[in-house]
Amino acid sequence: MATSDKEIVKEIPRKSERFSDWYTAVLLKSDMVDYSPVRGCMVVRPYGWAIWEGIQSWLDREFKKTGHQNAAFPLFVPESYLKKEAEHVEGFAPQVAWVTHGGDDELGERLAVRPTSEAIIMPMYAKWIQSYRDLPLLILQWGSVVRWEKATRLFLRTTEFFWHEGHTAHQTQQEADDECRLILDIYKRLLEDVLAIPVLTGRKTDSEKFAGADWTYTLEALMPDGQAIQAGTSHFLGQNFAKAFDVKFLDRDNTEKYVWTTSWAVTTRLIGSLVMQHGDNRGLALPPRIAPVQVVIVPIRHEQTPAVLARARALAASLGEGVRVKVDDRDEFTPGWKFNDWEMRGVPLRVELGPKDLDKNQCIFAARDGEGGKRAVSLDGFAAAVVAELDAIQARMYARAKSYLEAHVVTPRSLDEAIEMIKERQGFVRVPMSKDQRAEEALRDASGGSPRVVTDEPAAGACLVTGAPAEMIVYYARAY
Amino acid sequence: MATSDKEIVKEIPRKSERFSDWYTAVLLKSDMVDYSPVRGCMVVRPYGWAIWEGIQSWLDREFKKTGHQNAAFPLFVPESYLKKEAEHVEGFAPQVAWVTHGGDDELGERLAVRPTSEAIIMPMYAKWIQSYRDLPLLILQWGSVVRWEKATRLFLRTTEFFWHEGHTAHQTQQEADDECRLILDIYKRLLEDVLAIPVLTGRKTDSEKFAGADWTYTLEALMPDGQAIQAGTSHFLGQNFAKAFDVKFLDRDNTEKYVWTTSWAVTTRLIGSLVMQHGDNRGLALPPRIAPVQVVIVPIRHEQTPAVLARARALAASLGEGVRVKVDDRDEFTPGWKFNDWEMRGVPLRVELGPKDLDKNQCIFAARDGEGGKRAVSLDGFAAAVVAELDAIQARMYARAKSYLEAHVVTPRSLDEAIEMIKERQGFVRVPMSKDQRAEEALRDASGGSPRVVTDEPAAGACLVTGAPAEMIVYYARAY
Repeated sequence: MATSDKEIVKEIPRKSERFSDWYTAVLLKSDMVDYSPVRGCMVVRPYGWAIWEGIQSWLDREFKKTGHQNAAFPLFVPESYLKKEAEHVEGFAPQVAWVTHGGDDELGERLAVRPTSEAIIMPMYAKWIQSYRDLPLLILQWGSVVRWEKATRLFLRTTEFFWHEGHTAHQTQQEADDECRLILDIYKRLLEDVLAIPVLTGRKTDSEKFAGADWTYTLEALMPDGQAIQAGTSHFLGQNFAKAFDVKFLDRDNTEKYVWTTSWAVTTRLIGSLVMQHGDNRGLALPPRIAPVQVVIVPIRHEQTPAVLARARALAASLGEGVRVKVDDRDEFTPGWKFNDWEMRGVPLRVELGPKDLDKNQCIFAARDGEGGKRAVSLDGFAAAVVAELDAIQARMYARAKSYLEAHVVTPRSLDEAIEMIKERQGFVRVPMSKDQRAEEALRDASGGSPRVVTDEPAAGACLVTGAPAEMIVYYARAY
Repeated sequence: MATSDKEIVKEIPRKSERFSDWYTAVLLKSDMVDYSPVRGCMVVRPYGWAIWEGIQSWLDREFKKTGHQNAAFPLFVPESYLKKEAEHVEGFAPQVAWVTHGGDDELGERLAVRPTSEAIIMPMYAKWIQSYRDLPLLILQWGSVVRWEKATRLFLRTTEFFWHEGHTAHQTQQEADDECRLILDIYKRLLEDVLAIPVLTGRKTDSEKFAGADWTYTLEALMPDGQAIQAGTSHFLGQNFAKAFDVKFLDRDNTEKYVWTTSWAVTTRLIGSLVMQHGDNRGLALPPRIAPVQVVIVPIRHEQTPAVLARARALAASLGEGVRVKVDDRDEFTPGWKFNDWEMRGVPLRVELGPKDLDKNQCIFAARDGEGGKRAVSLDGFAAAVVAELDAIQARMYARAKSYLEAHVVTPRSLDEAIEMIKERQGFVRVPMSKDQRAEEALRDASGGSPRVVTDEPAAGACLVTGAPAEMIVYYARAY
C-alpha cells in the first residue's frame, strides 16, 4: 500500500483524543456538509442530504400510516401573531431574524422568519376547525426554520436548520396526550431501529419544556464524549395556543370548546448525533438502514482483468432494488485508496473482488463496523449473504451503542458525587429529586449540566439536593 | 336528489362566464389552498400539497435517473453576493425581502431572503470544483423562495412560492446547453404525460430571459381563457456566474477555465395551471396520474345493507398499491351529496355500488371528465377495468387539452390582425419577426401581450412589424 493510501485517515484527528476536531473533520472530509458565507448557516451537500432523505422517507411512511398529512405554511410570521402567546414570544423573540423591508419599501409590520410555526398555523386552524367532525386535525410540514444563534456547530446548532414540525388539534386532553406519545414512539423507533442510536425517553422538567407547552416529551441520546443530546421532542400544548388564537369547535354535546393541541419535531441535528455515535478514527460509520450507499464493490485491478469488472457489475445488479450498491470502477485510484475512501464515508459493507477470488468463486466481505476483519464468501448465494451481513452490522452497531449507554447511566450516592459525575461527563447521572424548581437550578448551577429527562420510573427515598421526599427521577448530564 | 345536494355546485361561479372567480372558488372549496395572514403568502393545504408531492416524486425519480442529486443551501443571501452579477441583481433586487435584524441586533450586512439561489450556490461551487474530474456537478434543491409581488393570486403569483431549483456546472458550452435541453424534455414529459397539459417549447426572446442568463428555454401552456402561462424554464447561464463568482477548473489540457452553468425550475404555479386547464363548472378535474385520490367508491345506502360496504372495501383492497383509492363510508351524507363533493374535488373515477348492483354482480363507473355518463361494469375483472378506465381518462383529458391548444394557435396576415388577435386573447399568435428588439417592444406595447416563446421553426418572409426579413417565429399572447 502506497503512503498516499493512508492520507485520508491521517488527516482525521483521533476521535478519543480530539473529539470536537474529529467531528468537524469527518463531516467536511466525507462531503456531507460545508460552511456557507452566511453566519451560522450550513450547506447540506448531497451525501448529507441523502441521509436526511432517508430519515424523511422513513418518517413520511410512518406519519401517513397514522393518518398525518403534509402541508406548507408561510415562512413568515407577523410580529403581532408571534406575540399572542406570552411564554412563546418570550422564548423565541431573542432569536428571531426580522424582515423589515420588501424591495425598497419599509414594511408596516415586521415579519419574523419562522423560528417555529405555531403562531402562523393556529390562525388557520381557527378558520378550518368548526365542529368535532373536523378533529383530529393531523398536519405536519417539512422545511427549515431560523433561530439566531450566538455559537454554532455543523448540524448540532445552526442558525437555519431543517426539520419537520407536526401540529395537531384534538377534541380532548387525553387524545392530545396520546398523540404526543404516539409521536414519541415513532421517533424512538426511528432512533433505535434505523439510526441505531439508543435513547432515554420521558418528560422534560418545567424549566426545560418548550416555550408555550404544558409539558414536553423528549428523547435523549448519549454521545461517546459522555455528553447528552436531545434527539427529538413532542410537546403537549394544552389549550394555551387554542386560547391565544381562539381555536374552538362545536362538540357533540352542542357546546363550544377550545381544542387541545400538540407540536413535535426532529431536525438535521440527528445527522450530527449519527456521526458522533458511530464514527471512529477512520471516519464515518453508517448503520445500513440509513446509509446512502450500503455496499461498495471494489474490483481489484480490473484494468488488467476486465472479467472482474463485468462480474462486479453483475453481482451489484443481482442485489436488486432493495440494496443501495455502488461499483467503484474508477481507474485513477488504487484499491487501497478506495478502501480508505469508502471507510471514511462510512459505507457499511465493502466487497472486494479480484482475479484470484473469481478463480475460487468467492469474494471478500469487509464490514465497516469491525476492526478491519475480512472473510471470504462464496459467490453462490451472494445476494442473501449481503442482506444477512447488512442485518448483522445493523444489529451489532445498535448493540454496541446500547451497551455504551447502559454502562454510562450512573447513580450517585450523594449530592457531591452527583455534581462530580456530571462535571466529569460520566454520562446520564440518575438523581432522585423533589419537584422544587430551586433544587433543579441548584444542581444545574453547581454541575454545569442540565436536567435532560424525567423517566416514568417511580421515585423513592429523599431528594438528593434538598432532602425532601423524592418525587421524580431526573437524569442530568452535560449536553449539546 | 335533495336540493342541498346541488349546493356545492351552485356556489361555484360558471367557468365560461367568470373565469377568475371560478378559479378562486374551486381552489378554496376543494381545500387545496388558503390565504394566510401574511400579505401575498398562501397556505398549501394537504389536498393541494399531495398534488405537489406527486409532482416532486415523479421529478425526483427522473432527476436521479439522469445523475442529479439533492442538497440544501441557505435561505439567506448576503447583499454583497447578490450584487456580484450585475444583470442578476438588477432583475431581482426590487423584489427582495430583506432581513436587517437578528434578535435585537442590527446586522452588519443585510440578508436577502433568497429570490433564487445562484448567488449563494456559486461561491460553494467555486470551493468544490477544482478539476474536470469534479464536473459535471448536477445539484438541485427543493424549497421555497420569496419575491415581493405587488399583486398576487393563489398559486399563480405569490410572494412565497414552492419550487425546485437546479444548478449545474459543466466543462463545455455544449454540455451545459445539452443539460438545459435534457431538463426541458423532462419538464415537457411531466406537463404532457403526467399533468395532461400540452405545451409549446422553445426559447425566450432576450427581453424575457432570466436576469443573468445568455438564453432561457421555456414551456408555455394555453389556459381556457386564451391566456398563456409559463410552465417552466431552463436557463443557459454561459460563464456569467462563473466569472462573477470565480468558478474555475483545471481542464484535461492543464489550463484553467471557467465552468459553464445552468439553472432551471418549475414551481407550485403548475398546480394553478392544472386547475385552470382541466376544471369545469362542477369544480376540479384531475388527470389520474396526478390525482391524490384516483378512484372513490361510494357504497349506496350501506347503512341499510352492510354487505355493500363490505364488498366496497374488498374491491378497494383488490386494486392493490398501484391505485390510490378511497371508500366513502360516511353515514352523515347522502350518496348524491358525495357524488357532487368528489366531483368538485376532481377525483377521476367514481364507482357506485348498491344492493341492486350486487345482485347483478356489477358496479357503476362514472368518469369525472365526461358529461355525467355512467356505465355498468362487471365485478369480474374489476381491477383491470379500473386501470383501463384511468388510462382512458388520462388520454382523453390530454387529447382534449391538445385539440384546444391546436385550435388556438393562430396566424395573422397583418400587424393589425396580430394586435387584434392578441388583444382578443385568441391564443398563441404566430408572428414572423426580425431580431430587432424595437419590433418586439412595439408589438408588446400595441397589443398588451408578450413574446412567449420562439420555437425551432425556420422563419420565412417578412417581419410582420418592420417588414425586414423575418429571422424567427415568435408566439405572442396575453399571459399570466
